[in-house]
Amino acid sequence: MNIGVDIGGTNIAAGIVDDGGRIIKKITASTNRGRGYGAVVKEISIILNALSKDFEGGRKVAVGLAIPGVGDEYGNVIKCVNLGWRNVPLSDDIKKLTGMDCVIENDSNAAAVGEYRFGSMKGKESFVMLTLGTGLGSGIIDGGRLMKGFHGAGAEIGHMVVGENFYNCTCGKNGCLETFASASALVRYFKRIASAGDEYTVAIDMAGGDVELVDSKIITQAAMRGDVLSLMAFDRLCKYLATGIVNIINVIDPQEIVIGGGLSGAGDFLLEKVDSYVKKSIFYNELTHARVRLALLGDDAGVAGAAALPEFLKYPI
Amino acid sequence: MNIGVDIGGTNIAAGIVDDGGRIIKKITASTNRGRGYGAVVKEISIILNALSKDFEGGRKVAVGLAIPGVGDEYGNVIKCVNLGWRNVPLSDDIKKLTGMDCVIENDSNAAAVGEYRFGSMKGKESFVMLTLGTGLGSGIIDGGRLMKGFHGAGAEIGHMVVGENFYNCTCGKNGCLETFASASALVRYFKRIASAGDEYTVAIDMAGGDVELVDSKIITQAAMRGDVLSLMAFDRLCKYLATGIVNIINVIDPQEIVIGGGLSGAGDFLLEKVDSYVKKSIFYNELTHARVRLALLGDDAGVAGAAALPEFLKYPI
Repeated sequence: MNIGVDIGGTNIAAGIVDDGGRIIKKITASTNRGRGYGAVVKEISIILNALSKDFEGGRKVAVGLAIPGVGDEYGNVIKCVNLGWRNVPLSDDIKKLTGMDCVIENDSNAAAVGEYRFGSMKGKESFVMLTLGTGLGSGIIDGGRLMKGFHGAGAEIGHMVVGENFYNCTCGKNGCLETFASASALVRYFKRIASAGDEYTVAIDMAGGDVELVDSKIITQAAMRGDVLSLMAFDRLCKYLATGIVNIINVIDPQEIVIGGGLSGAGDFLLEKVDSYVKKSIFYNELTHARVRLALLGDDAGVAGAAALPEFLKYPI
Repeated sequence: MNIGVDIGGTNIAAGIVDDGGRIIKKITASTNRGRGYGAVVKEISIILNALSKDFEGGRKVAVGLAIPGVGDEYGNVIKCVNLGWRNVPLSDDIKKLTGMDCVIENDSNAAAVGEYRFGSMKGKESFVMLTLGTGLGSGIIDGGRLMKGFHGAGAEIGHMVVGENFYNCTCGKNGCLETFASASALVRYFKRIASAGDEYTVAIDMAGGDVELVDSKIITQAAMRGDVLSLMAFDRLCKYLATGIVNIINVIDPQEIVIGGGLSGAGDFLLEKVDSYVKKSIFYNELTHARVRLALLGDDAGVAGAAALPEFLKYPI
């Protein structure tokens, strides 16, 4: 039984998670990042102190923090662009306010650890998890450990260049996978084709007639109903996602690939399209290759994954 | 002291290699693949029997075979497209004719093992080797072992899609890295831009006035002399190679990247261009990243790498 905290650009979610990955108690709060690092850390500490009351007296509380960025093994945040944090000693600061030892890890890595411990990747030897949210996050597990690379810069598959796109990535490059395969990429491409012609699309009706209110859920639902423009946008996402997956297979050939995040809610509709594109592009048809699967943890992936971190990372805390 | 055999589409090169990677004795022959698998195996066996005479009596000869394709740990070739071989028991067949135990490995992997044991990657923990020849081969070493993926389909970085190209790859896909960054890619793009306009290029003069005789060496030399079209082609290759390298860094973040094969003969002219493009595209500027280096073994990489295989792979032979 540990505590997991998922620090996002919009919300902080924290919970007590049992050894099966179930969240026993949960507290959420707005991140309200504008108030600055110190105030956010204070908010997290208040939540942690509230949750720790539910631990039996004397039992050491292990806390895992999932952050939207990169940190080091000593609990320092190196960079969280969304939060405007750079080089801050997050674990130390929380320890001062709570007395609790924390480990920190990138949120996509934490989600991969969650699937590995509690979800669809239990018992697997190696896999890559792609989290399709606003961006495309990724985590790689190999031989039971996170594969973060020699300099700690690995598993940034969202920034793998896979083609040429009509807009640049926030990182400055053109063609990053997340500009093709993420919720915001889907919306951006849909708006482009919807404004380019005068084809009717039910998606705009579903958004109350305002194209600006069309989001990735609406496009997905409209595509499932056979809407031409929505299908075109959804299909393009699946095609590029498959290119990214085949690239991953061509480099590291993991046992499995697992897709999580909001867009994975499209379920088999997403999976079947992606799978058919992957099959067409596999280099070694003679060999079996990674199957693409859906994540199981859903909305609680962040908190459950974060709670699994202290044991998984085995840092001396 | 082992024997290494490099089986290529054009030539077979075999040699006795000492523990420092030096080739003490070498025999080469035409592959002449049209004569079929059985005849090629017989030729290899004759070469091996000739070389083994130089081993002291009673000493066990360890043989490593580098193949242009994929095999398994039992010495069976699964597929060598160039040679037209599929599912043949190469090691067993050679053992029947020579009495020698052999291990087999993909030639790009063997080159990586060679650089690791004898070349520029001695003592490194993890690196990716890209061999720029007719195609783009690759080998990945991590923690002192070849990283070939869960299903044995990894390290095919030449077939990582990085953009859109004006011609398709031999694998059927569009945009594979080797269609941008290989000797044949360089020649193909050069011919395209040379035939599209009427700009003077010294490269055609260097090929005796016949554009069909322009090869990658001529283009490289002409680019070094400042020829506009050759520079344009060479620069494009470096740019896409850098995209491939940054993609590798974004997925697995190795300690180093090493470039071998014929095109690496361009030395610092290649390295400086690639490096400057890599620097511009790195996601985590805050962290150090893999340096790009040149391979050291040159033309003997195949034979030396093959000879290093038996000890490196530690298969029970």
